[in-house]
Amino acid sequence: MMHFNSSSISKMDKIQRLNLINSCTGYKSANLIGTKSTNGITNLAVFSSITHLGSNPALLGFVLRPTTVPRNTYTNIKETNYFTVNHIHKEITKQAHQTSAKYDADISEFSKVGLTESFIHKFWAPYVHESKIKIGCKYQNEYHIKENDTILVVGSIEHIYVEEGIMYRDGWLNLSNARSVAINGLDAYAVPDLLNRYTYARPEKPTTSVLLGNA
Amino acid sequence: MMHFNSSSISKMDKIQRLNLINSCTGYKSANLIGTKSTNGITNLAVFSSITHLGSNPALLGFVLRPTTVPRNTYTNIKETNYFTVNHIHKEITKQAHQTSAKYDADISEFSKVGLTESFIHKFWAPYVHESKIKIGCKYQNEYHIKENDTILVVGSIEHIYVEEGIMYRDGWLNLSNARSVAINGLDAYAVPDLLNRYTYARPEKPTTSVLLGNA
Repeated sequence: MMHFNSSSISKMDKIQRLNLINSCTGYKSANLIGTKSTNGITNLAVFSSITHLGSNPALLGFVLRPTTVPRNTYTNIKETNYFTVNHIHKEITKQAHQTSAKYDADISEFSKVGLTESFIHKFWAPYVHESKIKIGCKYQNEYHIKENDTILVVGSIEHIYVEEGIMYRDGWLNLSNARSVAINGLDAYAVPDLLNRYTYARPEKPTTSVLLGNA
Repeated sequence: MMHFNSSSISKMDKIQRLNLINSCTGYKSANLIGTKSTNGITNLAVFSSITHLGSNPALLGFVLRPTTVPRNTYTNIKETNYFTVNHIHKEITKQAHQTSAKYDADISEFSKVGLTESFIHKFWAPYVHESKIKIGCKYQNEYHIKENDTILVVGSIEHIYVEEGIMYRDGWLNLSNARSVAINGLDAYAVPDLLNRYTYARPEKPTTSVLLGNA
């Protein structure tokens, strides 16, 4: 068993620390955030920090550091209130990763990486046409995390688009069917295969599997 | 393409909405949080909201609703300052899921679900012996998310333990090698397989793969 403590972590080479700390918390969601500036330039950026916050009201959150690459995303959201969250699937990981390059603000990542912008139901922000699961969000609030000068952005879920063959009758999305990927660290993409669904856990009853055939 | 808007989401059956909204943001990390009360009773609870917050200082966060199941986790952290984060791997998903049952505060989930508590380097909170990646954390701060009355807990990473064969020379942990799982929605577990690692993206240079053989 290898061991690192706070002292050895702080003394690590910067790249090593980045890789270790970014991968030690486990898999992260893999999404593209789409925005559009007030003067009509679209923006697309890969995010691994998008997290479920609550179901009623339907809320999600993500973390960013305003001074780094996703600054166009943040500026656009603050100025226009709207953004989209688009799942990255197995076939578009390379294009998705390329959105993390530092393109100038007047260049749309859509035009550079080979993904297609899509405007649906007159929503201000662009969706990614290729994504099988797309969410339209509205900015609600933000929290400044003072421990490392990052911001947690909270958005409400206004629209959800799901391709056929993914959603089950009980509302659950089988992300394996969508071939959605997960992010491992800063730069690695993994394809999950469904292992099992379990029943609601109760103290007096051991966990058992839910039948998976009810799509 | 199926479509749901904020109005149809708010009118959904509660279970359907829980499943849809919990799965639409993508895969989530799969961890067990271990704590110990001031009177020595250990607690273990599955969490899917643990998220990387920053590398320097090394910080992670997770979201909880103090009034629901993980209340023992929250109480113990507030009273003792320490908690552990332990990866769930393929072979322990059933035991991990069973920790979400509402056991009384004087019962340790370790004794009920068949996982082994482990105290290392005199750390107050128990680690999960079976986990291949374990993190010892110290409470730093919390933020009340007023939109849905949840709390973002921020912890610093004090210790990291990693089994052999997982960490690469550049610090990156190959989570496929650890057989770490990801959570899909509320109750499903998936096993990711590594697809690719990519180079640092630059505007003038297309994304290419990093060699994966340097473990």
